Amino acid sequence: MGGDGNRAYGHKSFSRSRSHFRDRITADGRGGRPVAAGRYRLVVSRACPWASRAVISRRLLGLEDALSMAVADPVQDDRSWRFTLDPGGRDPVLGIRYLSEAYDRRETGYPGGVSVPAVVDVASGELVTNDYQQLTLDLATEWTALHREGAPDLYPAARRDEIDTVMAEVYEDVNNGVYRAGFATGQKEYEKACAGVFRRLETIAGRLAGQRYLVGDTLTEADIRLFTTLVRFDPVYHGHFKCNRWKLAEEPVLWAYARDLFQTPGFGDTVDFDHIKRHYYQVHTGINPTGIVPLGPDLASWLSPHHREELGGRPFGDGTPPGPVPEGERVAPAGRPV
Amino acid sequence: MGGDGNRAYGHKSFSRSRSHFRDRITADGRGGRPVAAGRYRLVVSRACPWASRAVISRRLLGLEDALSMAVADPVQDDRSWRFTLDPGGRDPVLGIRYLSEAYDRRETGYPGGVSVPAVVDVASGELVTNDYQQLTLDLATEWTALHREGAPDLYPAARRDEIDTVMAEVYEDVNNGVYRAGFATGQKEYEKACAGVFRRLETIAGRLAGQRYLVGDTLTEADIRLFTTLVRFDPVYHGHFKCNRWKLAEEPVLWAYARDLFQTPGFGDTVDFDHIKRHYYQVHTGINPTGIVPLGPDLASWLSPHHREELGGRPFGDGTPPGPVPEGERVAPAGRPV
Repeated sequence: MGGDGNRAYGHKSFSRSRSHFRDRITADGRGGRPVAAGRYRLVVSRACPWASRAVISRRLLGLEDALSMAVADPVQDDRSWRFTLDPGGRDPVLGIRYLSEAYDRRETGYPGGVSVPAVVDVASGELVTNDYQQLTLDLATEWTALHREGAPDLYPAARRDEIDTVMAEVYEDVNNGVYRAGFATGQKEYEKACAGVFRRLETIAGRLAGQRYLVGDTLTEADIRLFTTLVRFDPVYHGHFKCNRWKLAEEPVLWAYARDLFQTPGFGDTVDFDHIKRHYYQVHTGINPTGIVPLGPDLASWLSPHHREELGGRPFGDGTPPGPVPEGERVAPAGRPV
Repeated sequence: MGGDGNRAYGHKSFSRSRSHFRDRITADGRGGRPVAAGRYRLVVSRACPWASRAVISRRLLGLEDALSMAVADPVQDDRSWRFTLDPGGRDPVLGIRYLSEAYDRRETGYPGGVSVPAVVDVASGELVTNDYQQLTLDLATEWTALHREGAPDLYPAARRDEIDTVMAEVYEDVNNGVYRAGFATGQKEYEKACAGVFRRLETIAGRLAGQRYLVGDTLTEADIRLFTTLVRFDPVYHGHFKCNRWKLAEEPVLWAYARDLFQTPGFGDTVDFDHIKRHYYQVHTGINPTGIVPLGPDLASWLSPHHREELGGRPFGDGTPPGPVPEGERVAPAGRPV
C-alpha cells in the first residue's frame, strides 16, 4: 500500500506491513459495513500500484457512481497523503485535508503509517479499511448488486485457487519484489530481490506466450495486479528501483501483454504517468536525494499494436467493456511528448 | 576527466574544470618532454570515459610496449585514485599508492582534483599531464615513431577541421552532457542537459545511418570519443544519470554503430563493465546513497551481429587491426552472466 515505502526505507530490510484496518464491506452487511451506493469513498493515489488495482476494478465493474473516488496528490508531505489537488486543498466530499484525518477518526493516535487505497465512511468520516489485498476481491464479489450491466467476473469461483496461487507468486516476487530491490540497503539483499523479480517475470512471460491472460481466457484480478506493476516498470522500477536487467519494452511477450491491457478500457485510461513518476522520484529522497524526475522513457509506444488478440481470449467473458471514463476522472493520455 | 564528478556535485551547477597540468609530450621534445619508449607511464581507470579514450588509442596505435599503463581501482577513496588492485597496493612501476603522490611531486599543495588519464614521468615520478583533451591527439600525431606497423591514422590532417567540429559537439552535448544531467541539482538544469543529450544523439544517429564512421570512411579520434560514452550509456548513464528517454539498445543505428566499434579490436577488449558500474554507483553517493550496483543490463547483446560492414568503410584505412591484448592487460569479456 502506498505510503510505507519511505518509512520502511530506514529499516535494515524492507518489509511491507500488513494492513491494520480491515473491516470488510459486504453484500449482507455481516460485519456491520453493508454495501450501499454513496455510503463510502475510495481514496487513492494514481501513483500507487496497490491503490491503482482498486481504480481499475472500480472502472471495469462500473462502480463509479456507487463508490466515489478521491485522488490524493502524488507527492506526500510529512503528514502523508493530502488533497492538495482539490480546491482549497480539501477533499470535496470528506472535507478533510489529509487522509490521516480519517485514520484519526477511526483510532486516535494510531502509530502506523497512512496508506492508500483507503475506504472511508462518508457520514462518519472514519476509515473503514486500508486492506489493499481484500478490497478489490470484495469489489468483485460483494459489490455485485451495484455492478454495471455487463461487468466481468474478475474473481470467478471456479478459478479462485489458480488465481490465488498466481497472485501470491506475483505479489512476493514482482509486486513487492521491486520494492525490496529498490529499498534494499545492502548489495546482497538487492541482488536477491532483483534476481527474483526477473526470474518470476521470465516464468510469467513463458506462461503468457501462448495464452492471452494469466488465468483462463478472460481478464481476472490476477491480470489487474500484474498490470499495476508492469505499467510502472520502465518509468520507475527500471531506474529508480534498479530493476534493470531489461526494460519491459525489451521483453516481447510481457510488453505485448502489458500494452494489450493498457489499451483495454478500464486499464490505461486510469494510468497517470505524471503522478507515477513524480511520486516515486520526489518522495523517496533516500534513494533519489535530488528529487529530480527523469524525462524518459518515451511513452508513445504504449499505444502501438500488440497483436495479442491473435491468441483469442474473451477479455470480458460474457460481459462487455466499460464505457467512457466519467467526466472529472480523466487523466492525460499516454504518449504525450516528453 | 575522471575524478572531479563527485566534488563538482556539491556545486550549484556541474562544470568540468580544465586540466591544470598540460605539458605536452612531443616528437621533437620542444617543450622538454620528448617522446621516448619506457619514459612515461599512463595512469587510467577503466571506469572513466576520458581515460578510456587513451586506453583505446594506445591499443589501436600499438603503443603498449612504449607506454606502460597503470590501472587504478575503480572506486576512489577520500584520497582519490589508488593502486589497490596491485600487489601491496602500490603501482609496481611508480611505487606509489595514490596517484595524488605524482601530483604532489609535480606541485606541492595543488588544491585541484586528482584526475585520470594522467601521464607520469617514470624516473622523477612526477605528473606530466592530465590533459585528457590533448593526450590522445598527441598519441596519434606525436608518438608516430613508436606506433606499431599498420597503425591507423586516427587524426588525419586532411580531416581535422571536421573531426574537431564533431568532437566539440559530442563533447558538449554527449560526453559532458550526461554528467551535466546526472549531477544536476535542479529539475530545469537536468531537463536541459538530458534533452540536449538526446537531441545530439538523434542528430548523430541520422549522420551514422548512411555512413559507418563519424568522419570519412575510417576510424578516427571522433569515433573513440563517442564510443567511450556510448559503451557506458545503458550500464550507467541511462539509470544513474537519468538519461532515460531510451536505452542505446533501443536506438537501432547507434546501437549497431556501438556494437561495431565494440567488436573492433582495440575497443571492446579495453572495456571493463564491472569497473564502470562499480565506479559510478559506489562513488557518487550524492545521487546513489546506498552505493548499490545494479545487476543489469544484460551485456551479452554487445556481441550480437551489427551488419554495419554492409555500409563499407575501411576501419583501419591503409593500416591493420591491432594484435591481441597483451597478457596482464586483459579484462573479463562482456556477456558474462549477470
